[in-house]
Amino acid sequence: MVVIGAGFAGMAVVRALRSSDAEITLVDRNNHHLFQPFLFQVATSILEPAEIAAPIRSLVREMPNVRVELREATRIDLSRRTVVMNEGSDLAYDILVVATGAQTSYFGHESEWAQHALGLKSLGDAITARNKLLKAFERAEMESDPKKQARDMTVVVVGGGPTGVAITGTISEFTRRTLASDFRNIDLRQARIVLVQSGPRLLPAFSERHSAYAASALQRQGVEVRLGAPVTHVDATGVTVGDERIEAATVLWCTGVQGVPVARTLGGHVKPNGTVAVQNDFSVPGHPECFVVGDAAHAIGPDGRPVPGLASIAQQQGRYVGKLISARLANRALPNRYETFTPSKVATISRHVGVAEFRGRSIIGFPAWLMWGLLHLRALTGGGHAKLSILANWLRLLVTYRRSGRLIVEPSELATHQEGHAQKGPDDTTTRVSRRAVLRN
Amino acid sequence: MVVIGAGFAGMAVVRALRSSDAEITLVDRNNHHLFQPFLFQVATSILEPAEIAAPIRSLVREMPNVRVELREATRIDLSRRTVVMNEGSDLAYDILVVATGAQTSYFGHESEWAQHALGLKSLGDAITARNKLLKAFERAEMESDPKKQARDMTVVVVGGGPTGVAITGTISEFTRRTLASDFRNIDLRQARIVLVQSGPRLLPAFSERHSAYAASALQRQGVEVRLGAPVTHVDATGVTVGDERIEAATVLWCTGVQGVPVARTLGGHVKPNGTVAVQNDFSVPGHPECFVVGDAAHAIGPDGRPVPGLASIAQQQGRYVGKLISARLANRALPNRYETFTPSKVATISRHVGVAEFRGRSIIGFPAWLMWGLLHLRALTGGGHAKLSILANWLRLLVTYRRSGRLIVEPSELATHQEGHAQKGPDDTTTRVSRRAVLRN
Repeated sequence: MVVIGAGFAGMAVVRALRSSDAEITLVDRNNHHLFQPFLFQVATSILEPAEIAAPIRSLVREMPNVRVELREATRIDLSRRTVVMNEGSDLAYDILVVATGAQTSYFGHESEWAQHALGLKSLGDAITARNKLLKAFERAEMESDPKKQARDMTVVVVGGGPTGVAITGTISEFTRRTLASDFRNIDLRQARIVLVQSGPRLLPAFSERHSAYAASALQRQGVEVRLGAPVTHVDATGVTVGDERIEAATVLWCTGVQGVPVARTLGGHVKPNGTVAVQNDFSVPGHPECFVVGDAAHAIGPDGRPVPGLASIAQQQGRYVGKLISARLANRALPNRYETFTPSKVATISRHVGVAEFRGRSIIGFPAWLMWGLLHLRALTGGGHAKLSILANWLRLLVTYRRSGRLIVEPSELATHQEGHAQKGPDDTTTRVSRRAVLRN
Repeated sequence: MVVIGAGFAGMAVVRALRSSDAEITLVDRNNHHLFQPFLFQVATSILEPAEIAAPIRSLVREMPNVRVELREATRIDLSRRTVVMNEGSDLAYDILVVATGAQTSYFGHESEWAQHALGLKSLGDAITARNKLLKAFERAEMESDPKKQARDMTVVVVGGGPTGVAITGTISEFTRRTLASDFRNIDLRQARIVLVQSGPRLLPAFSERHSAYAASALQRQGVEVRLGAPVTHVDATGVTVGDERIEAATVLWCTGVQGVPVARTLGGHVKPNGTVAVQNDFSVPGHPECFVVGDAAHAIGPDGRPVPGLASIAQQQGRYVGKLISARLANRALPNRYETFTPSKVATISRHVGVAEFRGRSIIGFPAWLMWGLLHLRALTGGGHAKLSILANWLRLLVTYRRSGRLIVEPSELATHQEGHAQKGPDDTTTRVSRRAVLRN
């Protein structure tokens, strides 16, 4: 069987099948499993990539029935039971699990907006966001034109869900506390940080009280919170929100997800947002051998609404499908019908402030942040070393506002070239030369 | 005054002037000071970038007379006392310190070889080397052609000095011990690792006994050591050593340094290798206001040979010039004539094995490695957190062979574009578009 994607859902499938007879090929375009909930902390220099990602090969080292391939699936052919790959030979399957996750959606403006408003889905995205933010402030420090300087000192975060709220609060602290004393010409306590939410309140999945708390906590930190403010335009120098133009060098896009392209090749079962409508057992209608789990699946919760894109839900779905396949292979009784559990709602707003709803009780402030931290740290896939290292970083931040690496690290021209080259294999030389020539311009 | 370069030499100059009247502009093309001696450990996944680099701004936070600019110096005009920059206005100086370090030299084959044989001078280089190595093994795991597979499993390190020896030993362990159990189709214990040295022995600065010890320690680990073997050709699929062709997907270039281009603009005082001939006080002849220190300077030791490119020597030179400038500004007596000290010789070969010469005594094996580790850890600029974190990683490696992050992290196409864009400022759109278009090919 083939599993596409080694995120929370895919890894849960594989783990549930570890002592089964299934011979599994696990395909991912990255060599690491990523703990996405902490990605915003990499973007804001609190954590380093190695702390929130683990090599897939080391995670399946003790599972002799799993082989890992670092490739990208480009198309699924349900009738031929084949996954077409970006390079090398295609993969035939008897059973297929699509756990490809979601990617950022720009609501139909991909080609114009994606290049200016950074999504936050991969380690590369987080490093890019960090570089972009730090470089904008470096430019501001040397800029003599006040208009350009103000633009370089402005950050706009689009999206008032948990990710948008968390990254806005963290950027605000990073800028006003950690970085401010580093600069001589500019005063980063005057940096403009704007959180733009299209709906009427932040954290819409939480109670109104929590939404109001989050907004006022951010405002106390000097964040401008714009509610009921849909983004109508994004370009290289800023965003337009309704009729208001905000000039900003750094725009982060934390709203909107869609299925990744390969899931769209599943044909008529694909919703407009690229997620796949599945049956109760997560199989594609008419194809009991093909399952879709995690963010790639269009799953409806007991409240009739799409289930939230949470790690815990993806893991639960993956575990269920793994057990189902295991039972089927062993001719055992199938597990009971899948039921979505109600995950605890917890969000972090800024340094050690959060909101949570736990067993019907509302928790606010530091206790909620602590709950957020512990719940996520417990779920972190990666072992004791990474957890200790993260705890040490958090503790240092709690006490000193210091952060580990405010580093701008970029592969050189050579590096970009070499990577492109490595993917193509050592025989191709023509493309390389022209690429390199253009990169030099 | 202006200091170009925030490496060991440049930072030592600035530190020596911290309580002087000098108003210093410190220019660097990176935003971080890098602890280069540990760079090979980032390339081999033992350490992470944030552990061996510190933001320049945070290092000078307590020095109100220092301002930092993230820009690149492209030319020095001695007669106009001006440094021409890659962007923004030029910098006029009364006193100039050039501490630009060295870059990899391919002995006149830059244009053909540099794209295939990775140097190791920056964090970007280290990340690129790591990605390249890991991706070659991933390709090998899926390759059906035995010739290509063997090539993907071959690493050639060119240069038998301390860096070449250290990275060869570390790659050998990384490949044969840490990674071997991760792969199912290939046996990385059979990976071919070749160390190529043009001269007759490894570690030529050490005694012959140490050279022989290093060679046999590497050979015991399965490394092929080629002595008296000058590289005559490098291309995308391997290297030619004398008449022997070695097919290799990964080639690291740890030999040969030269001054960086900006130092070459100092005119008639520049040696063919791009370093600058200086007087006893490190000033450029005829220009008592312009100093060159560290690897950028062509300095001759008491033995009549060029001094080695060591952190401790660069720091000593920088400190001296800083004191000299400080005394001159305060009209105090100038410091005594500079004398190069004799640094202790210490090199690491592989996991906890090294060689050292200390006060005329020869030390070999674990004690020498310990000396290497402690000497360097003490010199690390970055504070207690980074040191503790490095110690924890080393301890883990000592006990388990585990390494923190064997991650392939690459900025996306978007990232590459965005960075190029960010450097140009938000107004330029034409270049961006064409660049992006080509990157997509």
